[in-house]
Amino acid sequence: MYYTIGLDFGTNSVRCLLVSTTDGHELGTAVYEYESGLSGILLDPADHNLARQNPADYLKGMEQSIRGAIIQARTTDTSFNSSQIVGIGVDTTGSTPIPVDAKGMPLALKEEFLQNLNAYVWLWKDHTSHTEANEITELAQKEHPEYLAKCGGIYSSEWFFSKILHCLRTDPEVYDATYTWVEHVDWITGVLTGTEHPDTLKRSRCAAGHKALFNNAWGGYPAKDFLAKLDPKLALLRETLPDETSNVNETAGYLTEDWAVKLGLKTGIPVAMGAFDCHLGAIGAGVKPGTMVKVLGTSTCDIMVSDTSSPLEDIPGVCGIVEGSVLPGYFGIEAGQSAVGDIFNWFVNHIQPGGKRSGSHETLTRKAARLMPGESGLLALDWNNGNRTVLVDQRLSGLLLGQTLHTKPEEIYRALIEATAFGALTIIKRIEEYGVIIDEVINCGGIAEKNPLLMQIYADVTNREMKVSRSSQTCALGAAMSAAVVAGKQAGGHDNFTDAQTTMSGVHKKTYKPNVENHKIYQQLYSLYKQLHDAFGNADNSTGLYNVMKNLLEIKEVSLKPATGNKVKKPILNVTEILSENTESKAMR
Amino acid sequence: MYYTIGLDFGTNSVRCLLVSTTDGHELGTAVYEYESGLSGILLDPADHNLARQNPADYLKGMEQSIRGAIIQARTTDTSFNSSQIVGIGVDTTGSTPIPVDAKGMPLALKEEFLQNLNAYVWLWKDHTSHTEANEITELAQKEHPEYLAKCGGIYSSEWFFSKILHCLRTDPEVYDATYTWVEHVDWITGVLTGTEHPDTLKRSRCAAGHKALFNNAWGGYPAKDFLAKLDPKLALLRETLPDETSNVNETAGYLTEDWAVKLGLKTGIPVAMGAFDCHLGAIGAGVKPGTMVKVLGTSTCDIMVSDTSSPLEDIPGVCGIVEGSVLPGYFGIEAGQSAVGDIFNWFVNHIQPGGKRSGSHETLTRKAARLMPGESGLLALDWNNGNRTVLVDQRLSGLLLGQTLHTKPEEIYRALIEATAFGALTIIKRIEEYGVIIDEVINCGGIAEKNPLLMQIYADVTNREMKVSRSSQTCALGAAMSAAVVAGKQAGGHDNFTDAQTTMSGVHKKTYKPNVENHKIYQQLYSLYKQLHDAFGNADNSTGLYNVMKNLLEIKEVSLKPATGNKVKKPILNVTEILSENTESKAMR
Repeated sequence: MYYTIGLDFGTNSVRCLLVSTTDGHELGTAVYEYESGLSGILLDPADHNLARQNPADYLKGMEQSIRGAIIQARTTDTSFNSSQIVGIGVDTTGSTPIPVDAKGMPLALKEEFLQNLNAYVWLWKDHTSHTEANEITELAQKEHPEYLAKCGGIYSSEWFFSKILHCLRTDPEVYDATYTWVEHVDWITGVLTGTEHPDTLKRSRCAAGHKALFNNAWGGYPAKDFLAKLDPKLALLRETLPDETSNVNETAGYLTEDWAVKLGLKTGIPVAMGAFDCHLGAIGAGVKPGTMVKVLGTSTCDIMVSDTSSPLEDIPGVCGIVEGSVLPGYFGIEAGQSAVGDIFNWFVNHIQPGGKRSGSHETLTRKAARLMPGESGLLALDWNNGNRTVLVDQRLSGLLLGQTLHTKPEEIYRALIEATAFGALTIIKRIEEYGVIIDEVINCGGIAEKNPLLMQIYADVTNREMKVSRSSQTCALGAAMSAAVVAGKQAGGHDNFTDAQTTMSGVHKKTYKPNVENHKIYQQLYSLYKQLHDAFGNADNSTGLYNVMKNLLEIKEVSLKPATGNKVKKPILNVTEILSENTESKAMR
Repeated sequence: MYYTIGLDFGTNSVRCLLVSTTDGHELGTAVYEYESGLSGILLDPADHNLARQNPADYLKGMEQSIRGAIIQARTTDTSFNSSQIVGIGVDTTGSTPIPVDAKGMPLALKEEFLQNLNAYVWLWKDHTSHTEANEITELAQKEHPEYLAKCGGIYSSEWFFSKILHCLRTDPEVYDATYTWVEHVDWITGVLTGTEHPDTLKRSRCAAGHKALFNNAWGGYPAKDFLAKLDPKLALLRETLPDETSNVNETAGYLTEDWAVKLGLKTGIPVAMGAFDCHLGAIGAGVKPGTMVKVLGTSTCDIMVSDTSSPLEDIPGVCGIVEGSVLPGYFGIEAGQSAVGDIFNWFVNHIQPGGKRSGSHETLTRKAARLMPGESGLLALDWNNGNRTVLVDQRLSGLLLGQTLHTKPEEIYRALIEATAFGALTIIKRIEEYGVIIDEVINCGGIAEKNPLLMQIYADVTNREMKVSRSSQTCALGAAMSAAVVAGKQAGGHDNFTDAQTTMSGVHKKTYKPNVENHKIYQQLYSLYKQLHDAFGNADNSTGLYNVMKNLLEIKEVSLKPATGNKVKKPILNVTEILSENTESKAMR
């Protein structure tokens, strides 16, 4: 019996999963909750857009979670020995770039930058860089429209170059001390294999292709003169980026002796190139042509693959189409919703509705399940955290409509679930419009497993059967599969992903089939949702309401500016305090 | 020293106020909470539109509150004697019609109708009759546009004939047993003076003019042939309605011996003609030309008067312009918002936000007061109970926009307050557009006294000073003033309302002055509010979004219909149970 390790770095914690390559049996798992900040996120109370992480949490978390999983495996199966572990795979959030020095050392780990949040990891959900995102989008529209065609037409504030440009513009001290910027996932595989030095570091195709405009069609990362027009310093950065990137069927390198000792593993086992959580999650859930995998968490990713042998049209508003970013040999197609579970969490944790004992997810779900579609008279937009697909606009916000003097919390809760289902349907429709057929939907992630009401609503709204992945840790499982593939059959792994999927993954027997009557009502509600979606979300719609959410944000930003002027805001808290502000630690994903 | 009694029948209780005619000093007061239903309102759990009352509550409440006020007066001033009371004035909610038999006896007090909610009092906020309201509006638009010109262009589902027609259509048994329909206010003055028999009953100009299309210009109530086209039976009803109506400076009659004994008062003291609460409240607060009185409660009324010597244009969307309905000799102008306090109550009581101990009005107000205008990024429409002025449309609903994953309950609470302020500004602007100058705003009602934040926001949004009436019971005070006027100076009262107002009313020294900076921000927010207002509320706007709230209501209504068909729903509860369902009795107004 052989095993591989899947390391899944989430937003609030890192999980290690120890999986049998023979039958997908999950022998041990352990989760390490990041210690810094609030649930691992460093926040600036004066700027809700800011979200950073501490790389020290990654190192400690990696060690503790792997050791924890091995201990659990030994307890479960006394015959287990860690020498049976034949490879390591890694997934992380992204785009989550880290400023590093010329040796590949994160600035945040250096004494002189301990007090500056800009030197830390710029977490995927950091939205400080929207101005720079617009700037990049505008320049690309003018000079390189092909760059945008593969990433939905708009370059996001969550992505690699937006964040780097924002740092350059607002904190030259940090920027100038940085040699290059490295995605979280690449830094991890670099550290484990001793290749973190910028000269040797391999970079993930998935991360580069989806977030940093990497495409072999135009010679890899964006052209130097393009970056120079944004800022001459970006042209220098371009020189630190390699010409090639690597897929998850390639090795990043081999486990160093130091780390092998630290983790209690064999030196020299292969570490697979990493990818973003959802992409490896999709592999873990069984993605293949015709199958959409929905990774449902605080936000969602919708992942598909399409054979590279037939051409694939650009799909407007779909975040990314990147060759090899999911399964090697296929186009990876990525879409997603900026907030799903986070919207329900917002309602439960921030609004805290329902008074005593009635405001939990469980109670609200139970009460919401008693309602008929349409019964509440409510309709919501799922934009509390902006819209990733198909509008690609962080500067959108939530909307709730139809409330009366009798509207109850569970009705709002259900309307929010329905809103995310309508958002999901909008994505499916857009992808199918462009010729990609979706004949199967597999869901994974906590919500898919824990909330049958949500799954049924998704089935009823989309009029499609909803399947749920057998593993509750598909991201880590996908990472473990990549480890199995780089290990190869000879060493106890697999020679390709098809074999790895057949052996290591599957779906639950219980599925959610659409109810015809409910679907009819949801068709009517969806057409109203689409009206609001287009009115408030499309710049070129005829209602003239596109300005409303934008203007509110502008008014808000002005009202929050200090009266003395428009100076760039520096983090106002002592970072040491933020690092240890872990008062409500709870994995939300 | 002389006194008069003001009887104020509210939505949940009746209050008696005993006021000195010499100096406005309020010697005694007592409140009686209605016993039936939920806080005095009979509800149908299957139909949120339904709201009825029990006339027995009025009789018992009248007796107990007057006796209570007299006891309090005696305790406070031992020299007080109830023979010093020289008159009674009455205000009630409206339109709140009661089906009565040929002797003027409410059907609800008769054995055979005890179990039928349709035989009870149709409370102002009963919205079961929207279909009939549309029908009346459409017929009037075609045949008698002048009828609508004085009531804002649309006949409301809250009003007299809508309710009567709805009863006729849905419950012929009750309708056929009814001889005529009498407004709550007229029934009370009729009962006290022994003139409740339909042959002798006087009807209030205020009630008839604002809710029943009464106008001397077209011979009083609407023409028989007009009513006949709605239903031939309505033509018969028309014959039970008098040709004349009476103002609050006229007597309804004189206190009967029976009631004098019951109440401990002198037989034969004058009872003034009644009016709706807000109209007498406006008098109590000091309404005069140029002054808008805002009665702020669960809903609001905005009352103005305009000299009849100069012509007054019709004001589209303003509920009513009726000669003599407020002060005799002036046009009374009535506008209002369908829900103000009720929206905040909804948020606090139904959504119950903020978790443990943080969800009270007090806490939310305190936290909301720390926010800058615009800081929350939120914008709301104040339509949770429809829109009375200027859209005159019950079939509108609430809207909240701009929420993020960080939005807090106090931000929503403040946005709801701001929404009602924007609604108030919309009314002021509309009235001024039509040449009525508003150079003073006096607020009264619980919210005006208890919520300085709301008052300041109203000042900042409207850019006008907000004054607050000295009396916290302006409706009852206005009723007591009408009693003073019908008593006359000779008997210890006053000869006219100017004298009564000068002597008996006033405003607080503390006023709320607009803050210039805040007003600038609110000007921007108001223009966004107006965009949403017009998009969702104006049928002829160009955004195409007018259908959204309407369609949601239609979908909701279909989803609530029993699968077996479209049969008219009968009250599903045992009325006896509803009558005593007084579990959460609390005056909300």
